[in-house]
Amino acid sequence: MYLENINSPADVKKLSYKELNDLGSEIRTSLLQKLSEHGGHFGPNFGMVEATIALHYVFNSPKDKIVFDVSHQSYVHKMLTGRKDAFLYPERYDDVSGYTEPQESEHDFFVIGHTSTSVSLASGLAKGRDLTGGDENIIAVIGDGSLSGGEAFEGLDYAAELGTNLIIIVNDNQMSIAENHGGLYRNLQELRESNGECECNFFKAMGLDYTYVADGNNIEALVAAFSTVKDIQHPVVVHINTVKGKGYKPAELDKEAYHWRTPFDVETGKPKVDYGNGENYADITARYLLKKMREDRRVVGITSGTPTVMGFTPERRKEAGKQFVDVGIAEEHAVALASGIAANGGKPVYGVYSTFIQRAYDQLSQDLCINNNPAVLLVFWGSLSAMNDVTHLCFFDIPLISNIPNIVYLAPTCKEEYLAMLEWSMRQNEHPVAIRVPATEVTGCHETVDTDYSELNRYKVVRRGSKVAVVALGSFFGLGESVTAMLKEKADIDATLINPRYITGVDEPLMEELKAGHQLVVTLEDGVLDGGFGEKITRYYGAADMKVLNYGARKEFTDRFDVQELLRANRLTDEQIVEDILSIVH
Amino acid sequence: MYLENINSPADVKKLSYKELNDLGSEIRTSLLQKLSEHGGHFGPNFGMVEATIALHYVFNSPKDKIVFDVSHQSYVHKMLTGRKDAFLYPERYDDVSGYTEPQESEHDFFVIGHTSTSVSLASGLAKGRDLTGGDENIIAVIGDGSLSGGEAFEGLDYAAELGTNLIIIVNDNQMSIAENHGGLYRNLQELRESNGECECNFFKAMGLDYTYVADGNNIEALVAAFSTVKDIQHPVVVHINTVKGKGYKPAELDKEAYHWRTPFDVETGKPKVDYGNGENYADITARYLLKKMREDRRVVGITSGTPTVMGFTPERRKEAGKQFVDVGIAEEHAVALASGIAANGGKPVYGVYSTFIQRAYDQLSQDLCINNNPAVLLVFWGSLSAMNDVTHLCFFDIPLISNIPNIVYLAPTCKEEYLAMLEWSMRQNEHPVAIRVPATEVTGCHETVDTDYSELNRYKVVRRGSKVAVVALGSFFGLGESVTAMLKEKADIDATLINPRYITGVDEPLMEELKAGHQLVVTLEDGVLDGGFGEKITRYYGAADMKVLNYGARKEFTDRFDVQELLRANRLTDEQIVEDILSIVH
Repeated sequence: MYLENINSPADVKKLSYKELNDLGSEIRTSLLQKLSEHGGHFGPNFGMVEATIALHYVFNSPKDKIVFDVSHQSYVHKMLTGRKDAFLYPERYDDVSGYTEPQESEHDFFVIGHTSTSVSLASGLAKGRDLTGGDENIIAVIGDGSLSGGEAFEGLDYAAELGTNLIIIVNDNQMSIAENHGGLYRNLQELRESNGECECNFFKAMGLDYTYVADGNNIEALVAAFSTVKDIQHPVVVHINTVKGKGYKPAELDKEAYHWRTPFDVETGKPKVDYGNGENYADITARYLLKKMREDRRVVGITSGTPTVMGFTPERRKEAGKQFVDVGIAEEHAVALASGIAANGGKPVYGVYSTFIQRAYDQLSQDLCINNNPAVLLVFWGSLSAMNDVTHLCFFDIPLISNIPNIVYLAPTCKEEYLAMLEWSMRQNEHPVAIRVPATEVTGCHETVDTDYSELNRYKVVRRGSKVAVVALGSFFGLGESVTAMLKEKADIDATLINPRYITGVDEPLMEELKAGHQLVVTLEDGVLDGGFGEKITRYYGAADMKVLNYGARKEFTDRFDVQELLRANRLTDEQIVEDILSIVH
Repeated sequence: MYLENINSPADVKKLSYKELNDLGSEIRTSLLQKLSEHGGHFGPNFGMVEATIALHYVFNSPKDKIVFDVSHQSYVHKMLTGRKDAFLYPERYDDVSGYTEPQESEHDFFVIGHTSTSVSLASGLAKGRDLTGGDENIIAVIGDGSLSGGEAFEGLDYAAELGTNLIIIVNDNQMSIAENHGGLYRNLQELRESNGECECNFFKAMGLDYTYVADGNNIEALVAAFSTVKDIQHPVVVHINTVKGKGYKPAELDKEAYHWRTPFDVETGKPKVDYGNGENYADITARYLLKKMREDRRVVGITSGTPTVMGFTPERRKEAGKQFVDVGIAEEHAVALASGIAANGGKPVYGVYSTFIQRAYDQLSQDLCINNNPAVLLVFWGSLSAMNDVTHLCFFDIPLISNIPNIVYLAPTCKEEYLAMLEWSMRQNEHPVAIRVPATEVTGCHETVDTDYSELNRYKVVRRGSKVAVVALGSFFGLGESVTAMLKEKADIDATLINPRYITGVDEPLMEELKAGHQLVVTLEDGVLDGGFGEKITRYYGAADMKVLNYGARKEFTDRFDVQELLRANRLTDEQIVEDILSIVH
């Protein structure tokens, strides 16, 4: 076995083409083994096996610096740069992160997880090299739908002016997470079909040199192409045509499902755990929207490359037809598009992960909120308990969205409330509305929910008590229930429990009312504290005698954390909160 | 005179070509008169006179909908759509805003002020039209450097897939605010030089139909081109070659200076008020950086299309050579580039207006802060007293930047402190550092300033007193001095005065210390309150007996406000603050 003896790229360089191909097979076997047991990004890595081997065969990492876009396709790179054990031995599987990580290896230069950044980051490395008089190769690897993000274009536009060595590998696997969208991908198709020789060439139009590799899964062809551009003294694009999921039939056939995969049975390709049985908010959303679409042709769903976040499977996308738009990975455009649609009589609903909505702050502020158009934004997975990679944290959406004027950001606590808010948001024409879709399991509401949310910032008093008032936002409403129950049990305190519903404002009359009979207000939010919801309530009480405790997460970047540990470290368990409360209220 | 009789586009349609040309001359005369007295965007409007006339001659606004990118070139559009009086009569000059504004006219569809948004917004209108069964033309007018922003690319990429009517006018005046940068602009040059016929065509590569107008200041040629694409049933780009500043020699000769212009003498072109005499922070910054660049070749200044925000005039850019980079209007790339440069040994300093840094939130968070690279960011004009157009508000940068982990955001209060912080930020290698450059007139410091800021979040007690502590951030330090002086004078209170210096953290030991001898802490920040600096201090004291008052601006979008009125409306005058304090502290 070759892989076991690869401790650095130097060991790759010793092998013959025959041996490199065998190494590729071994890598696929290990990847299949690990990913079927452990889950992870499947298709992107299977497609990049040969290209990664060829990169390390030709270039001299870490002197030559390779920057992987999104870096979800860097598994093979990790295997060849001293981290093979994390792919060979089950007990070591968690030794490495799913993305590049400079703290793991000198062969990694950035922590990367969002798309479309590699060309810009690499051109920064190139400029740094030029300023300090270095002579290394700088290589950006971009593909898998990342080209559609505006930052990638800004990077290419700048790269063309750089005038020194920068090698941009475009890994064209004909896919984004789902199918590709946008005019650019038609040009990639023309380039593939003309063996890179069609007159109209996007990269050349951008002022870049260009070369094409028809079989991007052929090590010899790749080595030849990379050797030609090595040490080149101007920026160049190497367009390689690869097969996403290459080498495992089910992944080649269903590229979307195998982009990222939970553990599965290698024989059948079926998931080991079926997550499909319980109700979930993605599914609820898609079913609701499809019904709406049938009733009202103005309704349109929008995604930026992740249609299943809102339950739009390929079948449902087909059913929705022109009433569902995938703009590709282009969150800025998605927000502006939604604003424009709303301005011209449509009913747009844009569904997006919490971690990705931050790619469109200026569009939220300028294109949408200044114009106050009634578009609807569904923010999914906004929670400390959602994704736990440092690049995919889902707990900054509250400070991001809620400090922008005009938008109404709602936090439903249960299924019926979510649907009622969604219904209202689509019916009204007064505000842009965002909904923080519960990140919990689906729970029914204990009480009847309101249907009209047009009187803004009216919190709901779920249980009226005294001494302590717990304001429990959205996904943390359950925590609020638990805290109030424990206060009763431990200290016979009948606390007031409030479902604030509105993230974007303080219910000032209610806060005034609480001054009678309450000594302490406690806020709970499933996100970062800094700039968040609770601070606004604390500010309201700044000059009053009311004491306030804010619960949420400290402002910090945490990688691959254990959720329970994170909650404990931030004193977010019911026991800890009750302990704090009882140290103040007696 | 024709212009006086133009009350709507219908009146434009009645004129012959001869009369349309005379109308164009009258428009230029009025524009020159108004802008020389009033100031405003000069070059963009002078270049668009003929194209705007032709648009309204051919299309039927407001049924047909024209979306102007940045909308700083919409003055002629306003003159032709019932708002001519605001350009003809000095007493009416302030009747209209400098940007499109739906509240002014049914011919305006969005409030727009940031670049690169028009194609996305227009494609939203087009999609809305298609959903509701309309048949109007949707026209986006983009140019003046706006194409380099990622959102424009995302919009073009989507437009190519739209499949229905969308007309994209590319107003190619060969300029951004300063000269254009990036590979794309080389392709525009090739297109101009080949009369639109060169093989490699960026727009065609993006999947768009394309047509070229060699003389974009010729009404007949434009009318012919627009007539051809009117009611077209697919997206098309009309590339028009115009002269920025056309018709006024000084503006044609110095396009950068005449992009936006303060009042000037029509004969000489010289500004009526010379702002150049006093010291300013842009100038201080450029002089400091040029010296640094000479001493250290690793130092590099970065701008995203606005080099003079940091004092880099054309002469200074020339002097800096490869140590100054203008990436064009591409803030996302600028931040990622800076991170990459810092990761490879360079010393990048990116200067940017407060209102534009919000275009790069995700890059600040992901490309820069997660990677914790020591790039330096200079945020200029962050203040309630900076720009007062609703699209250019400069008071959201504190919530935007300061709630991101890892970055150190500093707020100097005077010249020497600014320079000391800048010097430290470039010397250190531990953190990304942003500096909120004072938005005040340049003032010297009353005290010696520290040179080392590596012990984070240590506020400086400028004067130690009792009862009241005033924490006065950055540009509001002067307000803090004034408030404490007034407290002494009116109530004989010797208040403690604190210069917090760090926006990104609370000096907890000092806050503890203040509990002795103080009843009230007052925070002052020159920005929006929500998610800002003061709330963090209030949260710290949530469970304590300390009372806290936070001063800053309410979260709202305000257009063309009077600064003094805004300050009073937010109780931000020293008298109001002292009145509030004395109602609490006796």
